[in-house]
Amino acid sequence: MKLIQPTLRDIKRAAKCIRPYTIVTPLLESGFLNEQIQGRLLLKVESLQRTGSFKFRGAFNAISQIPVSKREHGVVAYSSGNHAQGVAAAAQLLNLPAVIVMPEDAPTIKINNTRRYGAEVVLYDRDRDNREKIGKEIALSRSATLIKPYDDVNVISGQGTIGVEIVGQAQSMGAVLNSMLIPCGGGGLSSGIATALSELNPFCSVYSVEPEGFDDTARSLRLGHCVSNKVTSASICDSLLAPTPGELTFSLNKNLLAGGFAVTDKETMNAVRVAFNFFKLVLEPGGAVALAAVLSHKIETKNKTICVVCSGGNVDSDLFIRIITGN
Amino acid sequence: MKLIQPTLRDIKRAAKCIRPYTIVTPLLESGFLNEQIQGRLLLKVESLQRTGSFKFRGAFNAISQIPVSKREHGVVAYSSGNHAQGVAAAAQLLNLPAVIVMPEDAPTIKINNTRRYGAEVVLYDRDRDNREKIGKEIALSRSATLIKPYDDVNVISGQGTIGVEIVGQAQSMGAVLNSMLIPCGGGGLSSGIATALSELNPFCSVYSVEPEGFDDTARSLRLGHCVSNKVTSASICDSLLAPTPGELTFSLNKNLLAGGFAVTDKETMNAVRVAFNFFKLVLEPGGAVALAAVLSHKIETKNKTICVVCSGGNVDSDLFIRIITGN
Repeated sequence: MKLIQPTLRDIKRAAKCIRPYTIVTPLLESGFLNEQIQGRLLLKVESLQRTGSFKFRGAFNAISQIPVSKREHGVVAYSSGNHAQGVAAAAQLLNLPAVIVMPEDAPTIKINNTRRYGAEVVLYDRDRDNREKIGKEIALSRSATLIKPYDDVNVISGQGTIGVEIVGQAQSMGAVLNSMLIPCGGGGLSSGIATALSELNPFCSVYSVEPEGFDDTARSLRLGHCVSNKVTSASICDSLLAPTPGELTFSLNKNLLAGGFAVTDKETMNAVRVAFNFFKLVLEPGGAVALAAVLSHKIETKNKTICVVCSGGNVDSDLFIRIITGN
Repeated sequence: MKLIQPTLRDIKRAAKCIRPYTIVTPLLESGFLNEQIQGRLLLKVESLQRTGSFKFRGAFNAISQIPVSKREHGVVAYSSGNHAQGVAAAAQLLNLPAVIVMPEDAPTIKINNTRRYGAEVVLYDRDRDNREKIGKEIALSRSATLIKPYDDVNVISGQGTIGVEIVGQAQSMGAVLNSMLIPCGGGGLSSGIATALSELNPFCSVYSVEPEGFDDTARSLRLGHCVSNKVTSASICDSLLAPTPGELTFSLNKNLLAGGFAVTDKETMNAVRVAFNFFKLVLEPGGAVALAAVLSHKIETKNKTICVVCSGGNVDSDLFIRIITGN
């Protein structure tokens, strides 16, 4: 079966759809940090997006496409937390009921916020249960629409709107991007942005960044076919633990990405500290991996202009403080 | 002597001058918080501005107006820290030497950053020394140009560019502003924004917000003439400790502001926590007083649209963590 891939036209349509409800997040840079890396580093700050992560974009775009006749049955999503909040908030704005299937060990802030957006939360055991199965069953029993976290053309198009914004903002700052690094779980964010970049800025190399041990996309890109992570144990990056690349996202990423990097938790925590000290930002660990890759020299920075997406800021305050104080 | 006051035309000229070097900071809102206050609250986030505060705008605009023949002698400024960094960074970008006179008890982050922007830092004792006298003496001995922290038409015009941005951003979000609350030290930020608003959005009421015990502007507004603070003791808001309104800034504020509020350190610390939890922002105490005024019900919020300026984020991490953890 041939997969229907999103195009720049879909992304531009998504941009128009989500525009009145989303923040045009800033593209920040720090003179100190530029000096340090002997290049120019631009941060696209999606932690400032509605719901504290980029996920609102894809969720809102996907839910907006549901036919009016199906809306009363609502939506279902499974998510470690950021897609959960994105779907819950978008459903609330569009007046649809939402059920969200979340792992019981998700950060408290993410579970609480999802409920505060009016969604019904169903918790599952990450080791024992199959979240996709639970999600599909709920969808079936309620005739609700399943909003997948990444493997969906409308979700990917929504995330791709970030690429369109970056290109415009970089241009107005006189920046010509050499490369772009993007946090990667299932690959929706990277495939969406890479799709936009491939037409708007084809000379910019796009890379995925994952936590070490969860670098299924990087390894799949090297091998040319999808492989899964061996472990499902632990990383500080709760938002990037997808076990395998999405089918649709990988069909895009394998053609559009120049490669993938993996970073350690230690490198990620350093990036969270740098975002705090240099940019006055609160990033969650998973939101800081692209910045971590640059700071830990995974890519040449000298005389280069590099953009990193900082994808989310939903971190429990205890963990954030532990990271900032280095304890 | 009649004071020369800035006009919207000066502010628009300043906007053009600083545009390539400044961040168009975002105007953020939180659905949760809007629900809580039963109104619409918009945050103009200048902690994300270059140097971590709005001060870069006025400094860059003022330094840009120095005639070429005088530039080699450099600039001098006295400041508790944010104007220091703004002047140092602007001077560095424009290739002028800078000397900055700072209180020896200024936050470490502010002193260190000022030095990192290439400025020479001269420390003084807040209780014993007169910073204006020291600044003027250095300026005289070096033929350098003194860049005042607020009582200067070009500095005020630079800060006023925030008002122009807010009006455009609010419009694109479909928001009609009822009131605007602005952190106030010497009054440069409030007088600049109020000047812009008076022409662009004359139905929006503008208020200053100060720390309790340092509410010289609020009291001066009530009395109709300048009065000083009685104490020069302590507030957590190191950036808002100016002893008296500026002559030029007060000549504007007394006609343009609807009044002034004062907030306690406790209210300010709560606002820092709210900015962290709801907006993923790192604010310094002085940068959070306008938000604090809204959260502590100094103004009616029900069915109102209120904008608060979050003016800076340069806080030492120890203090920030103490505030976040409530210790």
